[in-house]
Amino acid sequence: MSSSTSDLVTLAAGVALALGAASGVAAQQAPLSAQDSDPRVMGWMQGFPPPADKMITQPDSVYFSFPRLRWSVCHLREFLPTEEISRGVGAPVPLDYPSPAKFAELRAQIDAVTFLPQNSDQPMTWEESLFANYTDGMLILHKGQVVYERYFGCLEEDGKHAIMSMTKSFTGLLAEIMVVEGTLDDTLLVRDVIPEIGDSAFASATVRQVMDMTTGVKYSENYSDPNADIWLYSAAASPLPKPEGYDGPDGYWEYLQQVQPEGNHGDEFHYKTINSDMLGWIISRVSGKPVTDLASERLWRRMGVEQDAYQTVDGKGVPFAGGGITAGLRDLGRLGQLMLDRGELNGERLFPAEVVEKISAGGDRSKFGDGFPTFGAGSYTSQWWVLHNDHGAFAARGVHGQTIYVDPTAEMVLVRLASFPQAQNGFIDPTSLPAYQAVAEFLMANN
Amino acid sequence: MSSSTSDLVTLAAGVALALGAASGVAAQQAPLSAQDSDPRVMGWMQGFPPPADKMITQPDSVYFSFPRLRWSVCHLREFLPTEEISRGVGAPVPLDYPSPAKFAELRAQIDAVTFLPQNSDQPMTWEESLFANYTDGMLILHKGQVVYERYFGCLEEDGKHAIMSMTKSFTGLLAEIMVVEGTLDDTLLVRDVIPEIGDSAFASATVRQVMDMTTGVKYSENYSDPNADIWLYSAAASPLPKPEGYDGPDGYWEYLQQVQPEGNHGDEFHYKTINSDMLGWIISRVSGKPVTDLASERLWRRMGVEQDAYQTVDGKGVPFAGGGITAGLRDLGRLGQLMLDRGELNGERLFPAEVVEKISAGGDRSKFGDGFPTFGAGSYTSQWWVLHNDHGAFAARGVHGQTIYVDPTAEMVLVRLASFPQAQNGFIDPTSLPAYQAVAEFLMANN
Repeated sequence: MSSSTSDLVTLAAGVALALGAASGVAAQQAPLSAQDSDPRVMGWMQGFPPPADKMITQPDSVYFSFPRLRWSVCHLREFLPTEEISRGVGAPVPLDYPSPAKFAELRAQIDAVTFLPQNSDQPMTWEESLFANYTDGMLILHKGQVVYERYFGCLEEDGKHAIMSMTKSFTGLLAEIMVVEGTLDDTLLVRDVIPEIGDSAFASATVRQVMDMTTGVKYSENYSDPNADIWLYSAAASPLPKPEGYDGPDGYWEYLQQVQPEGNHGDEFHYKTINSDMLGWIISRVSGKPVTDLASERLWRRMGVEQDAYQTVDGKGVPFAGGGITAGLRDLGRLGQLMLDRGELNGERLFPAEVVEKISAGGDRSKFGDGFPTFGAGSYTSQWWVLHNDHGAFAARGVHGQTIYVDPTAEMVLVRLASFPQAQNGFIDPTSLPAYQAVAEFLMANN
Repeated sequence: MSSSTSDLVTLAAGVALALGAASGVAAQQAPLSAQDSDPRVMGWMQGFPPPADKMITQPDSVYFSFPRLRWSVCHLREFLPTEEISRGVGAPVPLDYPSPAKFAELRAQIDAVTFLPQNSDQPMTWEESLFANYTDGMLILHKGQVVYERYFGCLEEDGKHAIMSMTKSFTGLLAEIMVVEGTLDDTLLVRDVIPEIGDSAFASATVRQVMDMTTGVKYSENYSDPNADIWLYSAAASPLPKPEGYDGPDGYWEYLQQVQPEGNHGDEFHYKTINSDMLGWIISRVSGKPVTDLASERLWRRMGVEQDAYQTVDGKGVPFAGGGITAGLRDLGRLGQLMLDRGELNGERLFPAEVVEKISAGGDRSKFGDGFPTFGAGSYTSQWWVLHNDHGAFAARGVHGQTIYVDPTAEMVLVRLASFPQAQNGFIDPTSLPAYQAVAEFLMANN
């Protein structure tokens, strides 16, 4: 199990982001509340031009540190080059809503749902949890119908929000679709798919080990170590021109070619973002398409989504398969519904049910370790988190509080987009996972 | 009248682009034909990764020089930070098409239309002109119906293309809407709208002079002069981190604050991009909204467009009001139809007819000079080109062959997106403007 800091990911196009360091400092200073750090309250980027102290610019150590990140999570494309995940040019398929009266009633009921946060004997209401978690958007679908939808901070219904490591679950879903459809053999070694991976530690891993992050690869995120891998990775991935004299890897894929071994493939789950980028390379090589096009063709163009999504890229135009996607709240709800309904959406089958059955069944729990105590004794497979709880829930998760949470028993899909001051979900799970369970039980009992 | 090189604009976010210089060199080497330089034929950015000699990366002197620019015009966001011009989340309003049989018949007829290029006695067919002009997309609407639509090179029906200086016509249209609606007084001096313009030469110009580019401001685009203003402008506008020791203006607006005078306000039309950025600042200050939001609210959300557009930004998030927009071909056709129909589209009035009446009436022809011999004795007003021909045509125009051409007499709207090797439309007009007239006459005679 990697250390808790490995829960961090490099942002977006991989520009160096000391997320943990920056947010840790902020936390020690007692961060502003959700209400006080609302970007509209803060006045970020208001005015033409904004006052100097309200301007948010490069570098990412500025724009992606709290409280500025509460604005920036909705505006990543304004800082970084991106590729589109096109929805095509057709009409979206509207989501199903109850009557306005029923919708209002449900909101009041759900806001009043109470739960006990982890390690606490102080009950909290659902609505309180939204603020405790610096929520920017919350959508709940029950039996395919929107029963709850609220926006805060920088997000609006026609806006988009960085989904951080939920990007991995896009990459993993696309890979799993290819495996089930027989176009990707997950028993192959990486070097059999990408010969030029060379002497990289990834060479001898299987595609499945990459998908499940059980590779034995060295990738440290110790921010106090100037030689930590995170810095080299960030430098490689930055879309900005390389500094004079830079002779390191250029782009995600050159970085992956020089990864060193650490431990043995297959032994343990280690949450390391480089696996996701390795997987992105694999599925691009096999399909002949960038991950953005794959996501567009297999998902976005066929899901009736409302908005294009986008994905940050490195200096060679390679999308950040480990964390680069920005998308709309409702469209992520559609993705969750597609997962709940095992590959069907709007009456159309997009991929075999087996894809979701494999993901929701989870990975090898014995390899999960105890590094995510707030998440519990779960597993990780095909870049999705599986809770192994009595509702069979599984999730996409990203730093600062992003989640798509699918509860098959309650027939519930929940999407939260957020800008929690600290990156690690370990800080956010205690007031989130019990809340999701409580809402699921409310919906099962009342609807 | 400024020199012919002033027909150039800096690209996108203003990164230094020696468009004229680069494309001039290419031209001397006899550029590849449209067919041979098709980016699919060239193999740009194919493969995972592409071969090194097929990779297109920063800087813009590489990615925006011919023949690479034939790929890059469809992929600007992959190089630069951008802001969205949102279409909202509703359904698009489909364009009207004839039956497939009629559509095919019309295409054959239009492809066979012949015309005499300027200064030539060799007739050319319409279809030949498409290749002569390195056309990427061509759309013709007649009486509101699509009668011709073809895609080439990097563009497809669900793709987007840089529109270069046609961006100015977005900015000017938004300004004219505000003038006609009474929220912007075009007789005000710039310093009365933006006091911090300070001692800039723009301070004493009227808003109307900025709109019509009759300001007396120094802005040279002599690429062989290292002190030419274009370089300082590009350095200011670049979204990349400023080089160490850089002490020049940062962003479009700081640049505008230090512009020097040249000639007198109101004397002559000088095609200088900085006027468009000055106008963008003015309408943002007055409306309290960035030009991207203005374009979204007043145009894109209300036009039934199919795709979001986007606009490149400087390092402070200010959109490039003089050249930064990328959009879809059909959506630009919708904009042309909106202009043809004097502010009405899909049965809805978006702005007063007077807006288009003022634009199509043109500017002061006595100030136009003779710097655009291929365009003829026209005028420029509110950032639109007016031909003052017997059809009353007017146009948005951008380097490398972009145009929205509105012919009220023929009830024709024509949109061309292109990637001509050289920037200046003076090279492209001879095989374009007579072709447009010929097609207009064909449509009037036959439909």
